[in-house]
Amino acid sequence: MRNWILPENISDVLPREARQIEAMRRGILDLFTRYGYELVMPPLVEYVESLFVNDDPALDLKTFKLVDELTGRQMGLRADITPQVARIDAHILNRKGVARLCYTGSVVNTRPDGILSTREPRQIGAELYGCADIAADVEVIELMFESLALAGLKQVRLDIGHIGLFHALADAARLGGEARHEVFLALQQKDLPTLRAATAQLDPAIAQGLTALPNLYGNIDVIARARASLPPLPAVVAALDALEQLAAALAARGIAIRFDLAEVRSSDYHTGLVFAAYATGFANAVARGGRYDSVGEKFGRSRPATGFSLDLREMSRLPFPAARPAIIAPAGEAPGLLAAIRALRAEGETVIVDLGVDPAEAGCDRRLSAHGDGWRVEALD
Amino acid sequence: MRNWILPENISDVLPREARQIEAMRRGILDLFTRYGYELVMPPLVEYVESLFVNDDPALDLKTFKLVDELTGRQMGLRADITPQVARIDAHILNRKGVARLCYTGSVVNTRPDGILSTREPRQIGAELYGCADIAADVEVIELMFESLALAGLKQVRLDIGHIGLFHALADAARLGGEARHEVFLALQQKDLPTLRAATAQLDPAIAQGLTALPNLYGNIDVIARARASLPPLPAVVAALDALEQLAAALAARGIAIRFDLAEVRSSDYHTGLVFAAYATGFANAVARGGRYDSVGEKFGRSRPATGFSLDLREMSRLPFPAARPAIIAPAGEAPGLLAAIRALRAEGETVIVDLGVDPAEAGCDRRLSAHGDGWRVEALD
Repeated sequence: MRNWILPENISDVLPREARQIEAMRRGILDLFTRYGYELVMPPLVEYVESLFVNDDPALDLKTFKLVDELTGRQMGLRADITPQVARIDAHILNRKGVARLCYTGSVVNTRPDGILSTREPRQIGAELYGCADIAADVEVIELMFESLALAGLKQVRLDIGHIGLFHALADAARLGGEARHEVFLALQQKDLPTLRAATAQLDPAIAQGLTALPNLYGNIDVIARARASLPPLPAVVAALDALEQLAAALAARGIAIRFDLAEVRSSDYHTGLVFAAYATGFANAVARGGRYDSVGEKFGRSRPATGFSLDLREMSRLPFPAARPAIIAPAGEAPGLLAAIRALRAEGETVIVDLGVDPAEAGCDRRLSAHGDGWRVEALD
Repeated sequence: MRNWILPENISDVLPREARQIEAMRRGILDLFTRYGYELVMPPLVEYVESLFVNDDPALDLKTFKLVDELTGRQMGLRADITPQVARIDAHILNRKGVARLCYTGSVVNTRPDGILSTREPRQIGAELYGCADIAADVEVIELMFESLALAGLKQVRLDIGHIGLFHALADAARLGGEARHEVFLALQQKDLPTLRAATAQLDPAIAQGLTALPNLYGNIDVIARARASLPPLPAVVAALDALEQLAAALAARGIAIRFDLAEVRSSDYHTGLVFAAYATGFANAVARGGRYDSVGEKFGRSRPATGFSLDLREMSRLPFPAARPAIIAPAGEAPGLLAAIRALRAEGETVIVDLGVDPAEAGCDRRLSAHGDGWRVEALD
């Protein structure tokens, strides 16, 4: 009968946190606008096939299913917004040029990512469609940094990887199905013994390359080490060139990066560069993103794409901003009272009519009082 | 295979409409803040029992059900936010004084209200807990009017009813179960023949009162006519007194109202005053609200409550605001270019880096060009 109990890993956002989330949301959306990103709002529910860009078992498991009473078809409650934005780019907007789109809203997961994680992250993100050049990734990463700075995170560490490296090596070794997945998991967990065992039967140059990836971790020197230890397949060289170019462009913007060439923790749809931002006091990445070229193929238009997102609820670990103190005003219809209240509100003040208010609870530090013919704001004792 | 097709009565909000919704959302939330309403963000899903304040078959039918994998219990995707805010007032915040709370977010309905209605209204609303006085209703109605004015609706008609009238008459006639529901439906549909038939066996004074309600429609004269034609039960007199007082207080604020004493189209939890705002060009009410005293009882604390909400998507029938024209800038790392772009953005300009942009599509009217050693903004031809 305890009707107020919420499901595990589901919670209300109460006024202090809500004020913070709202302030960050506005700041970040305004930043996106200044970069030319246009807001879209895809629906919370749609047919389940449209919510995934590939067969994506991990995302499928995270997605709540619903039956559409109007058609009997299965719908899903979105667990990710990127496939929806890809659908909008591919089929709805169908822009000739590059499309810059942004979004914000809740996603809901059937299971939490960790015991303390929410099942309803409030995502905000930006995506750039139609440009394969590294300049698009540079812009998106710059935007991610500026977003985190707006949220109050100035000391941010950026890890960059490239899923193309794994795929180039796995393709060259003709790894498929289970075997490919096993190597992928071992890389993801940086589990070197399993990785060595799983690659023991492969061409020695490829096996050496795959087992080298977990050690290719650190500053710009990693690129030279990677050129020495990975086989010079065209896709490998292209990925390393892209990483080098990215580091230079980000350095010109004052953004330092760290390479992690075994970084493959990402969504199923990522195809190339992947990146994650970390900050002191946060166990998990505070923002993530990467390339997901061809994401729109399922929706009829395959374009290059890159983007990032972050969870506004994660930011609630930062100090909450104080609310502007309010003015308490008497209730009633005394002459001039309504006009005095209206004038204060027009100046941007919060005026709380006393219908039984506890001034401390309501955050009031001043009161509106009658003085002779007029009304005056004075300090509350 | 047409993966881009959305379910019926579900749609994307594309950039022009999204810009409008976002502007209204911010304007109305800021208005709420100036009145002392604090933002809360309840979750999209919770245990289904918590999503209704009473047995509420209509709301139950509108609510999508989900199974919580963590517990096997049934959850619901919210079709209404008010029961959630009532839970927060009753159990989470537990304020000593009056609590003023506001919210905004999507609700999802299993079926649309009409063939053209969305199944995902984007609600925004304000609620006042802990004050039974008519002054609370006056404040909420004033706030509703100011919200609609912000959205661009100046010519708004307000219909006011009082569900207490029906309940007082039905209670006096000891109407229960099916019979009560039949009379309620006939009133809701203003179906006089059915209403006469359904009340034929009742005490003549009560039957006359119930059949008089559909004709008690119009300006302030309605109150005098109601006093003459309804039996003077204490609850009837109290309701008519409240309506008269409300009309006077709203008149002092420049808000004209129209009475509709058969107005019972409302949520199951409404208990007293109900109101709806209508505007030219809109078939349905543009905002609705009323009293729902005791709404928090189920959550452990019964308090008086009044509030209103509106659907931001309905407002998309209004003209969309124009976006501020943007500046297109060349891509690359030319000397001074990054700094010039950064300075323009800091001034609030939208600067779109040309990674393959169609300037018309992207809404650009100026370009950033190199001139000698510097960069200059000039008109696009």
